[in-house]
Amino acid sequence: MQQQYRHLLAMAATGAWARLSSYCSTHQHLPEVPAMPGDTPLFLRAIKGAGVSFEYTMFLNATERRLLCLFQPGLYLEGRPGLTHSGAIAAIIDGTLGTCALAVAGKVMTANLSIDYLAPIPLGAVVLLDGRAERLEGCKFFLSCHVQSAEGDTLHARATGLFIQLDPTEHRMREEDGGR
Amino acid sequence: MQQQYRHLLAMAATGAWARLSSYCSTHQHLPEVPAMPGDTPLFLRAIKGAGVSFEYTMFLNATERRLLCLFQPGLYLEGRPGLTHSGAIAAIIDGTLGTCALAVAGKVMTANLSIDYLAPIPLGAVVLLDGRAERLEGCKFFLSCHVQSAEGDTLHARATGLFIQLDPTEHRMREEDGGR
Repeated sequence: MQQQYRHLLAMAATGAWARLSSYCSTHQHLPEVPAMPGDTPLFLRAIKGAGVSFEYTMFLNATERRLLCLFQPGLYLEGRPGLTHSGAIAAIIDGTLGTCALAVAGKVMTANLSIDYLAPIPLGAVVLLDGRAERLEGCKFFLSCHVQSAEGDTLHARATGLFIQLDPTEHRMREEDGGR
Repeated sequence: MQQQYRHLLAMAATGAWARLSSYCSTHQHLPEVPAMPGDTPLFLRAIKGAGVSFEYTMFLNATERRLLCLFQPGLYLEGRPGLTHSGAIAAIIDGTLGTCALAVAGKVMTANLSIDYLAPIPLGAVVLLDGRAERLEGCKFFLSCHVQSAEGDTLHARATGLFIQLDPTEHRMREEDGGR
């Protein structure tokens, strides 16, 4: 196991990492948001069937402003034969960075997503998305993400994300940072 | 109606635009590819239900190396309440550019996708993705995409894509261009 993961496990033991609820709709996650007709699922939860879709669990480290997402793409995320669709990889990266941004800066909208795809992800493989908050400039929130194999020996993708903070009163990062 | 769309309609009348088959799996589109167990659908066709998912039709202009995709996001592509998930927008952009690349350069893999999200897309709205082949350098294939409202008055997103040509014998663009 890479040194990196030993470090993460050590942090987990201290309680620094919190597993996020596996919510199925925006309404469920943010109760102030009205439910859509028919209890519409969040896009990442919209494909039904055990193990066939976006199978993932997210862990947040609020102190480090970092979000880890363990992700296993199911058969229904196929692009080229046997491989995960690049659009599905983009979607889970957006979900990872968006959830990290939500935790740090409140409600956000994606403004830019740039992804380098370095090695294909076979369907059924388990990968680790490591999303980090880099900086907040005004209402612009910059994040980065690496997508690695669970063993840490393959970097499948790297990405940057720019999110726009919708409510300037929710500047959790700046409050904690003293405005840096 | 914008001048741009009059131009497209005029081209359609000449037979320059061909509607692509609405294939549901890679195997169906490329019969040489073995079927996956359970007749696995392509990711963009994996959410079941009339009108709730990626509703789209693609038109190819081989001469112009341009692909138009009419897209209506259904309720199951929700991100923020009432709006299309940015990851779903990334997926349909990847599908549009990948299909254009496949038509021009044969089998390809996404290497980079960079998307600027300029205006949210309400669920149920109809948008037009305009994907264009820009240039082929060795096995690197560069494309661009605009996502506009059907009326042409709102630019929702713009994107660039870099795809890698997997089989160098399939250099359709260079053959036609005399190597430019």
